[in-house]
Amino acid sequence: MALIVQKYGGTSVGTLERIAAVADRVKRCAQEGNDLVVVVSAMSGETNKLIEMAQSFSQSPKEREMDMLLSSGERVTSALLAIALTERGHEAIAMTGRQAGILTDLAHTKARIQEIPSEPIMQEIQAGRIVVVAGFQGISPSGVVTTLGRGGSDLSAVAIAGAIKADRCEIYTDVDGVYTTDPRIVSKARKIERISYDEMLELASMGAKVLQNRSVELAKKLGVKLITRSSFNENEGTLITNEEDCMEKPIVSGIALDNNQARVSLFGVADRPGIAAEIFGALAKAQVNVDMIVQNIGHDGKANLDFTVPSTELELTRKTLGAFPHDLGRQEYDNDITKVSIVGVGMKSHSGVASQMFAALAKENINILMIGTSEIKISAVVDKKYGELAVRTLHDVYDLDK
Amino acid sequence: MALIVQKYGGTSVGTLERIAAVADRVKRCAQEGNDLVVVVSAMSGETNKLIEMAQSFSQSPKEREMDMLLSSGERVTSALLAIALTERGHEAIAMTGRQAGILTDLAHTKARIQEIPSEPIMQEIQAGRIVVVAGFQGISPSGVVTTLGRGGSDLSAVAIAGAIKADRCEIYTDVDGVYTTDPRIVSKARKIERISYDEMLELASMGAKVLQNRSVELAKKLGVKLITRSSFNENEGTLITNEEDCMEKPIVSGIALDNNQARVSLFGVADRPGIAAEIFGALAKAQVNVDMIVQNIGHDGKANLDFTVPSTELELTRKTLGAFPHDLGRQEYDNDITKVSIVGVGMKSHSGVASQMFAALAKENINILMIGTSEIKISAVVDKKYGELAVRTLHDVYDLDK
Repeated sequence: MALIVQKYGGTSVGTLERIAAVADRVKRCAQEGNDLVVVVSAMSGETNKLIEMAQSFSQSPKEREMDMLLSSGERVTSALLAIALTERGHEAIAMTGRQAGILTDLAHTKARIQEIPSEPIMQEIQAGRIVVVAGFQGISPSGVVTTLGRGGSDLSAVAIAGAIKADRCEIYTDVDGVYTTDPRIVSKARKIERISYDEMLELASMGAKVLQNRSVELAKKLGVKLITRSSFNENEGTLITNEEDCMEKPIVSGIALDNNQARVSLFGVADRPGIAAEIFGALAKAQVNVDMIVQNIGHDGKANLDFTVPSTELELTRKTLGAFPHDLGRQEYDNDITKVSIVGVGMKSHSGVASQMFAALAKENINILMIGTSEIKISAVVDKKYGELAVRTLHDVYDLDK
Repeated sequence: MALIVQKYGGTSVGTLERIAAVADRVKRCAQEGNDLVVVVSAMSGETNKLIEMAQSFSQSPKEREMDMLLSSGERVTSALLAIALTERGHEAIAMTGRQAGILTDLAHTKARIQEIPSEPIMQEIQAGRIVVVAGFQGISPSGVVTTLGRGGSDLSAVAIAGAIKADRCEIYTDVDGVYTTDPRIVSKARKIERISYDEMLELASMGAKVLQNRSVELAKKLGVKLITRSSFNENEGTLITNEEDCMEKPIVSGIALDNNQARVSLFGVADRPGIAAEIFGALAKAQVNVDMIVQNIGHDGKANLDFTVPSTELELTRKTLGAFPHDLGRQEYDNDITKVSIVGVGMKSHSGVASQMFAALAKENINILMIGTSEIKISAVVDKKYGELAVRTLHDVYDLDK
């Protein structure tokens, strides 16, 4: 007997048959005595179809109108699911973002949730109804529809779970949960039962596509227990919670591979205060997302600066640095690299994790081009061709299949 | 330089190409110096698709959820048209029924408009914008989305035109306007330039499908000048206005043929006060829409009662009268009839119109089974096989091709 928020993504509600299957699953969960809020995405493909329609008229359609357009997909799914639940004999009510009281800021197409009052949803729950909320949408202070950007329905679910103090928030997708690494690379990859918010954040930012960071960050902030699981089977899924709830604190929880990074090397930057701030200031202004940064002090008053940027932003980086007013020395741009990261909260209290990683990679003759670390993560940039070998090697070294 | 409301129906916005054509037309009208409010329907087929989806889950889906579902189609079209107009260099803003302030009663799926404040729309007009409103929808006093039923977008347009005191309301469909009769029956049928609300009401209720009566009634009540025309060409269309604006008051403006009526004859109903009320009360309770009624006093204290009902309700009528607690005498049910009507405001001041009609039909050996009249209409029920002949004959007699 719990208060549960469930969120079903686009593929989970992608056809009428799948919506019916979701209705069956929701009904079962309700019959077990749980109170339920169900957040739904648009049927898969619908949002892209609407975007294409808009782009057939304009390459930069007005964002206010885009939000009005895009918010229609979730309205359809939520109404259909409420109808399917009612037909199955359980009282259900569909709510738009507006009706659920999801108040956002004014940033159309990427609005941020400001506030969700618990009353609109809880009144219906207390009346014995399953509440089906259209995800991805809210309203601005002036009452205009806004949307929350990619992954917005997850965000709706987490924010609602926080607002109504739900016992947990279940995110349903087409994958079983969070794995120790990509099962396509390491067939022995194992589904993780529990993982901390921080570990999940490090894994997600590096390519684990189960959940976007915004949602995990919000869950951490609101103390919402997140479960990510599949809507296509009954497997248990992965619980994402605070560190204290993760009884065993593995040294390494998971390994991520990010093939979408490129390396920029500047050999011979003037070694004076403020130069790094100027370089990264220029890149930030050009909206380049710099990830890892390593600086060595060279000789002759010159420094070497290495950093990584998303591959898609490499040309933009080249252009921005080409127009930089000061001498940056010799410049190298390398798209042929990849980033391997090990993540685990246990690192905090264990020494030697990094050296173990470097030794394992060396044993396979994999040269490390850059190293970056945080409290719970160590990343190594290597030649792209060694990426998968590095992941398999590290998965073995840290016994992640056990 | 006028304030114009334009409404584009489902076929007029049925594809992206057609929405683009509508945007071009709207822009031209704006460039001529007019202020414009554009009301749009869902793309043709969309509403039926949503209904089918809902019915795949339930034969009687909840109406509140149906409204949430169905209102999404018009949101899409209005957002797309606003985007297309903006791209064409004219500022435009899309509004849902809620944003336009269309307040309705609580009757989901067939709500009635209660009130439309002029400010939300006029503020945008005064700011120089074209306002694109999602038709067919409003909100109930408690803020829940409602829809207005079939023909609801026309109703939205007329109500908005009344609220903002527009100079005219143009209803765009795929036909050129109102004709003197069905051009498929009489090739010489002529498009009417001007017609009064009352004539239009009589013609529409008898099968002219251009406009639903609810919209014409509302236009009459609010004094809105209606123009019905085609969005596929530049033809002038038909102006529907008050009788005073129709300079020449033709004796007969148009001829309607209604093939969807059936005749019920009761021979030998007890001739006592209240019996008719009981019969028609029972039929009303069964939701049978009785149209023409003729009663003759027979002999032996018995009366003969003839009336027409929609063909689709003939079985329901038979069942209802079969369960009637009093003796109704011999009963006859005839689905093989049709109703021919001549309509014209000039009838009021001309005598001999009816006898001219009867003489013309007699000359063609068409037997009249029932006659019904109103101030501006004379209807004759005849055998179905004579229907088209009757229309052609009367079209000639009243010189409607001139």
